[in-house]
Amino acid sequence: MIMLRQVADTLSRLREEKPLILSLTNSVVQPLTANLLLAIGAIPAMLQDGGEAAEMIRACAQALLINPGTLNLSQAHAMRLAVRAASSRNIPWVLDPVAAGLLRFRTELCRELLETPPAIIRGNASEILALAGTDVTGRGPESNHSSESALHAARLLASRTGAAVLVTGATDYATDGTHTVAVRNGHPLMTRVTGVGCAMGALAAALAACTPSRLIAAVSTATIWGIIGERAASAAPRPGSFATALLDEADALTPNDVLKNARIDL
Amino acid sequence: MIMLRQVADTLSRLREEKPLILSLTNSVVQPLTANLLLAIGAIPAMLQDGGEAAEMIRACAQALLINPGTLNLSQAHAMRLAVRAASSRNIPWVLDPVAAGLLRFRTELCRELLETPPAIIRGNASEILALAGTDVTGRGPESNHSSESALHAARLLASRTGAAVLVTGATDYATDGTHTVAVRNGHPLMTRVTGVGCAMGALAAALAACTPSRLIAAVSTATIWGIIGERAASAAPRPGSFATALLDEADALTPNDVLKNARIDL
Amino acid sequence: MIMLRQVADTLSRLREEKPLILSLTNSVVQPLTANLLLAIGAIPAMLQDGGEAAEMIRACAQALLINPGTLNLSQAHAMRLAVRAASSRNIPWVLDPVAAGLLRFRTELCRELLETPPAIIRGNASEILALAGTDVTGRGPESNHSSESALHAARLLASRTGAAVLVTGATDYATDGTHTVAVRNGHPLMTRVTGVGCAMGALAAALAACTPSRLIAAVSTATIWGIIGERAASAAPRPGSFATALLDEADALTPNDVLKNARIDL
Repeated sequence: MIMLRQVADTLSRLREEKPLILSLTNSVVQPLTANLLLAIGAIPAMLQDGGEAAEMIRACAQALLINPGTLNLSQAHAMRLAVRAASSRNIPWVLDPVAAGLLRFRTELCRELLETPPAIIRGNASEILALAGTDVTGRGPESNHSSESALHAARLLASRTGAAVLVTGATDYATDGTHTVAVRNGHPLMTRVTGVGCAMGALAAALAACTPSRLIAAVSTATIWGIIGERAASAAPRPGSFATALLDEADALTPNDVLKNARIDL
Repeated sequence: MIMLRQVADTLSRLREEKPLILSLTNSVVQPLTANLLLAIGAIPAMLQDGGEAAEMIRACAQALLINPGTLNLSQAHAMRLAVRAASSRNIPWVLDPVAAGLLRFRTELCRELLETPPAIIRGNASEILALAGTDVTGRGPESNHSSESALHAARLLASRTGAAVLVTGATDYATDGTHTVAVRNGHPLMTRVTGVGCAMGALAAALAACTPSRLIAAVSTATIWGIIGERAASAAPRPGSFATALLDEADALTPNDVLKNARIDL
Repeated sequence: MIMLRQVADTLSRLREEKPLILSLTNSVVQPLTANLLLAIGAIPAMLQDGGEAAEMIRACAQALLINPGTLNLSQAHAMRLAVRAASSRNIPWVLDPVAAGLLRFRTELCRELLETPPAIIRGNASEILALAGTDVTGRGPESNHSSESALHAARLLASRTGAAVLVTGATDYATDGTHTVAVRNGHPLMTRVTGVGCAMGALAAALAACTPSRLIAAVSTATIWGIIGERAASAAPRPGSFATALLDEADALTPNDVLKNARIDL
């Protein structure tokens, strides 16, 4: 019960603080990501140039998201500069290692970036298994593994990096290496809209800017996004209108809704 | 009648096989393209790096879309590597030559890529005329020519490349050089939403992954997308909500809907 | 009253002339920008390569938008070539200096581009203050300044460049350095959807293609977009469905709606 209250409080703080989140993310999901941040109450910023990324972090960003979904050489460079700037300013950064394990360039970049400890790592089971060093072959953004199968790898990765690791799937699991929390919110339609997982990474960054506890930020991310998905699905049962409803429900969600609808197993 | 049944069957197979489609496409239309693939029942993948493109094709892609709408030098390189990888793995690739004929860089790249035979070429009349070598000036994504005016060029291009050529316009025409099929489905609102044509190219790739006949894949693309457009227009008569309805109707469409609503002239 | 009629007439002309607008804009807002142009009655074109940009301007573009929101080196090069081509063809170009003042690379590029006089500069107060040479620190796309606070800077910038300057905020102000017009249309929900400001820059380019008066184009932009926002907000009070409604209302808006709903202080 203590943690559930903390999840609701983290949403309240996000609404008050309106953190500015710099997302270096893939081009496919930029509109949904920016719109989710605006709808939930944060301020999105996106850019490409490495020098500008470092400047913005020094000037005003309160958290950083790194998502290498459409990685290229100059973006890899910008990501390195951004993570370094975030670390030196002591602002949290979140890694969303899309298709790590499947594609070498981004897998190596993710491993390199992890030398600078992130606040949260969010991935599906294949991606978490790959980052933890278990050799797997995924199917791009589609995970062939249940989230349960990556629990051991997630704990390992959390212990090694100091990050909270959020493994997403039918059930989401958040772990700091010691404690593991299962979150059973969410809806299958969330897999039918592009960028729902990637936008979740940005939400994690926004919540990480609003609480000192990485584990609470990770649990809050899974819970809040899952409840939004459930409410959107009951408003709009097909993927086009569901995507619109996700943003409407992110705007409408109250901390009290979180208290009433969370399905967290401590 | 045989072909109409084959169109419906191709949709059924897409729903069963859920092919993973790698789209190297322009940045403007990525969200709609990925969301259409998800809504119709396929799995989208998008990326920028050439090495990653080749790796993904070798690992798990079942078809490839090439759309040079926002071409740059490194994307041109990635497209070359991707087409080569698709060819060596024997997976179908689709060319959507946006604004070919108008802009030199992409016109030359399209001609170069065509040396590796694609399964389908989808374009408006200006683009098909340009690729076939007829000298025209288009108006970017807007064709000044009726689809009928490019029929001769389409047959020529199909014979030369071995691809099925799909010329889109008020009426769509699919040809393999020998047989030509007119598809009269579709709705004018489809010209009022950005990326409707480009998303059609991705649908063509998804359907090409599900049938050995290039002509049937091309006819299926025009028929299925046209019916989706008609149903979306009757649900939502203005372009914002129409774009949302396109995805809802792609999700809802059944093979039986195809049998009942197709307007194909054999 | 004369100007109000001119605003309505500019919309009428846009609907008749369907100008083709080339937008070199940031990747986050490309879909909304292209869809707004289509919904209002213009034709969008977007691309990345500098050579292609110059070719398209020479071939068929009727106005050019420059928005450095996700600037990189090759895009900066393309922007230089595009502005030069637009100038030599005598077609209007619009500058939307996103986050100028905050980030050095784009601030310097914007100042360099301004040596070729644009038709319209559209920005929030921080951006206009920065371009006018007043040293400020903004918060990225979020302006800390009221639009009123940038009025002096806007007039200065207009006089110096020959552009109409449109400062957007709770009230929008358009000035040519001599005359200043306040436009009180708009709705707070417009700040809750990504790209609403950037799409306004593209609308400014489309309207600048349809009237010889830069000031009327700027006033028309603020009025038309503001009325669209008001109507969308009364149709859809949450940000996801509001974004969809913006496009539906852009399509539905008539010159008569403009005459009835404009709140312009001459």
